[in-house]
Order: sequence, then structure tokens, then C-alpha cells
Amino acid sequence: MEKTDVLIVGGSAAGLMAGLTVKRRHPEKEVTIVRKASKTPVPCGIPYIYGTLKAVEKNLIPDDNFIKQGIRMHTLAVESIDRGNKTADLADGTRIAYDKLILATGSRPAMPPIPGMQTGNVFGIKKEPEYLAQIQKTLESSRKVVVIGGGFIGVEMAEQIAKMAPANGDAAKDVSLVEMLPNCLMLACEQEFCADAETELRHLGVNVMTNAQVQAIQGNGKVTGVQLASGETIPADAVVVGIGVTPNIDLAQQIGLEADPRLGVKVDAYMRTEDPDIFAAGDCATKFSFFDGQPTGIRLASVACSEGMIAASNLYDPLRKSMGAVGAFGTTVGESSIGAAGLTTKAADDAEIPYVVGEAVFPNRHPGALPGCVCDMKAKLLFHSDTGSIIGGHVRGGDSTADMVNIVAAAIQGGLTAEELATMQYATHPLLTASPLGYHVMLAAENATAKMSGK
Amino acid sequence: MEKTDVLIVGGSAAGLMAGLTVKRRHPEKEVTIVRKASKTPVPCGIPYIYGTLKAVEKNLIPDDNFIKQGIRMHTLAVESIDRGNKTADLADGTRIAYDKLILATGSRPAMPPIPGMQTGNVFGIKKEPEYLAQIQKTLESSRKVVVIGGGFIGVEMAEQIAKMAPANGDAAKDVSLVEMLPNCLMLACEQEFCADAETELRHLGVNVMTNAQVQAIQGNGKVTGVQLASGETIPADAVVVGIGVTPNIDLAQQIGLEADPRLGVKVDAYMRTEDPDIFAAGDCATKFSFFDGQPTGIRLASVACSEGMIAASNLYDPLRKSMGAVGAFGTTVGESSIGAAGLTTKAADDAEIPYVVGEAVFPNRHPGALPGCVCDMKAKLLFHSDTGSIIGGHVRGGDSTADMVNIVAAAIQGGLTAEELATMQYATHPLLTASPLGYHVMLAAENATAKMSGK
Repeated sequence: MEKTDVLIVGGSAAGLMAGLTVKRRHPEKEVTIVRKASKTPVPCGIPYIYGTLKAVEKNLIPDDNFIKQGIRMHTLAVESIDRGNKTADLADGTRIAYDKLILATGSRPAMPPIPGMQTGNVFGIKKEPEYLAQIQKTLESSRKVVVIGGGFIGVEMAEQIAKMAPANGDAAKDVSLVEMLPNCLMLACEQEFCADAETELRHLGVNVMTNAQVQAIQGNGKVTGVQLASGETIPADAVVVGIGVTPNIDLAQQIGLEADPRLGVKVDAYMRTEDPDIFAAGDCATKFSFFDGQPTGIRLASVACSEGMIAASNLYDPLRKSMGAVGAFGTTVGESSIGAAGLTTKAADDAEIPYVVGEAVFPNRHPGALPGCVCDMKAKLLFHSDTGSIIGGHVRGGDSTADMVNIVAAAIQGGLTAEELATMQYATHPLLTASPLGYHVMLAAENATAKMSGK
Repeated sequence: MEKTDVLIVGGSAAGLMAGLTVKRRHPEKEVTIVRKASKTPVPCGIPYIYGTLKAVEKNLIPDDNFIKQGIRMHTLAVESIDRGNKTADLADGTRIAYDKLILATGSRPAMPPIPGMQTGNVFGIKKEPEYLAQIQKTLESSRKVVVIGGGFIGVEMAEQIAKMAPANGDAAKDVSLVEMLPNCLMLACEQEFCADAETELRHLGVNVMTNAQVQAIQGNGKVTGVQLASGETIPADAVVVGIGVTPNIDLAQQIGLEADPRLGVKVDAYMRTEDPDIFAAGDCATKFSFFDGQPTGIRLASVACSEGMIAASNLYDPLRKSMGAVGAFGTTVGESSIGAAGLTTKAADDAEIPYVVGEAVFPNRHPGALPGCVCDMKAKLLFHSDTGSIIGGHVRGGDSTADMVNIVAAAIQGGLTAEELATMQYATHPLLTASPLGYHVMLAAENATAKMSGK
């Protein structure tokens, strides 16, 4: 029987981060990662396989990085776990004895409960190289593609499919994006930034359909169209579904751990399950909001990595506590980049949190005549009216959007106020940032302080 | 007699920010800015006039932005101030009565006390459009250029002059950079990043001479060479001096305010001088370190802007306190960008502050196969050994270097710890940042926590 100190089930963001963390903290411990997929795709890189990278192989996380750290890797499913004897059985019959176990079983694409979802050439986004290659092959030979769902994955997939070179002699692809809500990206972004993203998609030729509900997938064997509730049918050679994810809790349930089909495996702030030797982290685990401690559906690689690190740090002593999911992200659509951390105005309204908005629009180079200038880069920050602390920040602009969001993310998690962010000193440079007169975070914070003080 | 509520003497970073802040906070107040220069050049953009912008006019801050806010602008020197009657006389005889006065008289280039500094074609970097145009004209017709001083301005000038197109038929320019210390940028950057900058300069053909002291400027009428202490003489058609700045305190001294020729006009943390109606901000004002409260020579536009905002906010009530100069900056040299906030290891050693270093080298895209990847982007963070709080951060990499430095700058000013920075959630995206497994600030912080806990 194989033996390991720490067994990690799942080899994507949370699992890999957990493995690296154990090796950093306890180099003497043996770590084994078991995953079903033959290789681990870079999860957030998946859309970029299609238009930019043009090959699944270019979007894989090399196992070597982990094997070099002394981590053992198995590419097999875990069939069962015996919690009493602390052993796990793999699909090939291998039995591994563990001391500590981390469940990082991730999530799978949610599929809408409508007729025809099993039709050929209808794809969710599974994190499996062979499946992703099959999507690529199908997309390459398809002219009409419908993407269902206008969240990150849907928007990024639509953008990338629109950028795919047409097959020899073909016209460019005919891409439609169907979103149920009034705007794409609406759960994560401010309305005006959603509208910008839609404009960028339209510039790329994408047919963006919002307030549109899918009723059925049509086709006999292979998909031929997507039927909407409005009665309209969009012709389709291929369909990509990106409406969200469902936590993988089967293994946890099988071994009697508490888990909710929608929320995930029950964990506390130390990422502990009810079993003192079993932790859970990443998409499979329950999430609570940083802001109000309520359950949340925020499932991002950044949350998964943070949880993987926290779980691994707590295996032998409860050292690190999760502060809850903040929701920090960035994306690019066409010529524009959008990012945010924390609450949108809508989320704050829904939670009845009183807030003041500070805004700044300024060129991201100084002078604006310098190459690479995005002259209307924008920051929109939300501060709690009572405490003055920042609770959300939204940025639209150049390539440094996500890094600027991380100033906001650090400020949210560190409890900084509008007053502090307004009077801080920021690094600036003509070729890299806005002028020190107009650095976006500073200026938006100052805009908010002026409103708060009534001046 | 003209009258104004707030008179600001000086129209660069501190003065302009002060004017905008008064108008934001007290729209009903009349604000007048008086400056000597005909227009305000973007101060940090000056080097980029020469290689990138190719015209002084492209590097000016338009007065319109301020006139539109209702700010009056005079382009004349202030000859004298009567503190008793609260009036200022301009060079053309105009007398302006003020209620509150902000001195933002800035600084001038320091020139080394060596023979020959008055020779023709030897230039400091004055923030005057006509003078900057004269430098451009001279550089365009010069083949051999020596830059004295390897700080920011010297490195950026050398880089830009090396990038200037040669005149018709000429060979490329022959640029030498002479620095007294063992490395360029040594007062601001970690040694390994200084070495990177020198490598980039050498790739551009710049003759980088460190540990080299200038003894005299040679030439009769026009410069012909720069003589070093080693005995060597570097031939030169033009010389640019960038060894630092001297605060402009003449006006303050003339009206009896305490001022030190090296440190500047004496101010408290509210940017107040001894006169209750006179404030000072920016390069002309004394600076104290954020870290130990000691006088410091850190004169950056970011500090000036922060001080201009603080001074203007305090005119009628002492509302905002300066936390002292942090020293946050970014720059680019050749293909590399470098930035930092707070203390270097050398500065921490000199101040006898015990610290732990955390480092991370990781691609700034994920997967690394994506376009624009800088695969060895590096962050080096310094944390106080006792408190765990971050006291410095250094970044080398892509175009988002300065924005990433600002995560560090916010963390320093907000007192965040290595533990907090390690377990935070950061926005990431394949085309914009490192992977969530390797976001530089997180990984460097985690590296430090592992050292601090002895694990």
C-alpha cells in the first residue's frame, strides 16, 4: 500500500496551491495529488485556447513544476475513501494511506434544464484537455456558434470564437451570445462597464442578445439551432454553454461529509470539514461573503488559491482563517479591460449597505500623447457611508486594470478608508500610469471624500 | 488691486493639485495660480520629449483644464509678498490681495560645484518649455552626449537620447552615463534591479560608467569633453546634468519664513508654515520619512501631489495630516520596467530596522505562452521582523509594474502584514496578470511568512 502524509484530491487551482503550500511549510511531508484529468488546463486560460493560443497544449500547467517540489502526481479518479482507516482507493485499485486529506474536487459546468442539452456539438466547459480539444475541432469546422450565458466564461468564449480565423474560403464565424439578464457580466460589473463590454463584442461582430431566455436546443443528432422563449430560433452548428458551475460534492457525500448540492462541502473559516483530518478548498467548498458572512456563489481561481493555501497551512495547527470571498477579477473584451473587487452598487443596494461612490476618468499615460494611452480609463469606488471604508472598486482601461483592481482588493481586505486612499502617495510614470494629479484610485477616493464631507 | 481667496505660487504638481483641491472642496473660493514658466511641462514626462514624443509641445499640461475649473492663471514671477497686508506683487507690477497663500515654488536642478559648469551646451533639467526646446535642438545636432548622474532623470535621459534618431547620414548618438556610486538608481532600487537597468542601457548602446566622478567640464565657449577624476576625458558635444534638485526657498526666505537651503521651507504635518495663512507643498517644502520621521530628500511628483492636496484641504481647518514621504515610483529602461515603494534593504540596514525579505519570480501572464508575457517578472518585499508589516516593495517586469507597486504602496501606508498579503484574494486574468498560483505580491508575501514562522 502506498503511503502519503497529505493526500490532495483534485489537481486544479486549490489542489495545486495546497500542494505547494504544504511543501513550503513542511518540506519533510510527503504530498500526493490525485486528479482525474490527464493534465491540468490553466482554468482561466481556457477561452484563450480558441482565438489566441490555437492549441490546448499551450494552456496546460506543467506537472513538472510540482514533481520538482517532490509532489507525487496520480492521474486517476478516487473511487472511495475509508475515513476510519484513512485510506483512499484509486480507479486502478491502488490504495493510498493518508494522514491528512484535502478535498479539492472543483466544480463542473452547470447545464440548463431544457430539452436538447444532450444533442451533439453542445458543450459545457469541462477542465479536461481532450474535451477542450474536441470543442476546438468542432468550432473550427462550425460557421454558426451560439454561446449561452453572458458571464465571464461566456463573454470570453464569444470574444475568442469571434477572433478565430475562418476555415479556408469561409466567411468569418457568425457568433451569438445569449444572456437572460438585461446585461452581460451583470452579476459582477457595474452596468456602464457591462455596456462597454457589449459594445466591444459587437465591434467584433458578435450578435449580443440580452433579456433572452433559451427554451430548447434543436437538432437531430447534431445541434441545428437554439430556440428562445421569444419564439425566435438562432441557427447553430455548435453551442457553448457558460451559465455557471456546480460544486463537485459526490465524493464528500459518499464518505458522509455534510455538503449542499448548490453551496458545496461544508467547511469552517479554517477550511476544515467535520472530519478533523479532512479539509476542503476551492470550488467544491462552501463560500461565505467577505462582506456579510452570507453564503455566496463566488467561485474564482483567486478564491480557490487562497483557500488552498489556508487549508494547507492549517493541516497540523489552525493557523490561518479565511476572511470570506471578496470577488476580485479582471477580464479583457476586444480593446477594453474590465476588473473589479468587492461589491457592485447593485449588490450593496441589495444588502442595504449605505455607500458613497467616487469616480475618476483620466488618461492612463502622462502626457496623453504617449503611446498606449487609454484616455478614458475609469475607476469607480464604493465606500461605506458610515465607516468610510472601501467596499468595492471597478476599473475599466488598459492592460494594468487587474493590477489596479488589486490595489482596491488589498484596500478592501485591509479596511482602508476613502480618506486614506485619497491622501496616499502612488507610484506613477509617464509610460506606465496616469499622472500623479490623476491616478485613478486616488482621484476616485478624493471624489468620494468630498461627497462624504459635504464639500 | 486684484483679489483672490487662495493664491498659489507655482504651477507644477503641488500647485496644480492644490488649486484643483480648493475648487473641489470650496467651489465658491477664488483661486489664482501664479507661475514663472510660460506653460507647465509634465514634469516626469520631460525625458520622453527627446526620444519618444519628439516635441516639447506634446509634453505640456494644458492650462485649459484649470481655467475650466474657474482657476485664474498668471504666467509671471512673484517679486515680493507683504505678509502684513496679505498681498503679492508680480513682475509686471500687478498686486494681488490674498486670504490664504500656498507656496509651491518647486525646485531647480542641482549643479555640481566643479569647473566649467557654465560652458555652452551644458544643461540641467529646468521645467521651462523654451529651455527644454533648446536642449532638444542641441541634442539633435550633437553626436556625443554625456549624462552626469545615474538617478531616475539621468537614466531616463540617457535612455531617451540613445533612442533619438541620428541626424541625416550621421551614425547613432554616442551616449555616456556617468554615475559616482557603484550602480545607477542605487538610492531608490535594490542592487539587482539597478544592474538590470544598466544592462538595458548597454543594450541600447549607452556607455554606462559607474564609480566615476566628474572633475571638470572642458571646452571654450562650447563643451568639448567631461573630465573624470580617473584622468579620463569623455568627448562631448552636449552634457545633461541630472544629479538631483535643490528646493526653491528664495521667496520664503525673503518674507522671513524659516527655510533650510537643503531641506526646504519649514512645514508641519498639515503643510503649515509659521504664518497661519501661508502653507507650503511640493519640492520647496521640507520632507520627513514615513518610516522614521527623519528629514528626507525624497522629492517626487507623487509626494508633491499628495502635499498639494493636503495643504489645500487644510486652508480653513486642519483636516488632513501628511504621513511623510514613502517614496513610490516606477520607471522603464529599454525593455524593462522597475518600480518600488518604501525602503530598500540598504535603507533598512542603515536605519537598523530588522526585516525579512520575501521574493517571487513568475510569468506575468498565464499560460506563459500568451502574448506580452514577461516570464521573469519579479517582486521583492521587505517586512518588519517584529511587526510583520510591509516596509518596502520592489517590482521588475511589464507595463503594470507601477500599478503593482501601488498595491505595495497602499499596503505600506495601510500597515498591512505579510500574513494579510499572503492570504488575500487578488484579481488575475490570463492576458493581464500572473496566475492566481503565482501573483507576485501574494507569493512574495507567502515566501516571507514562511521565513518568519520558521516554516
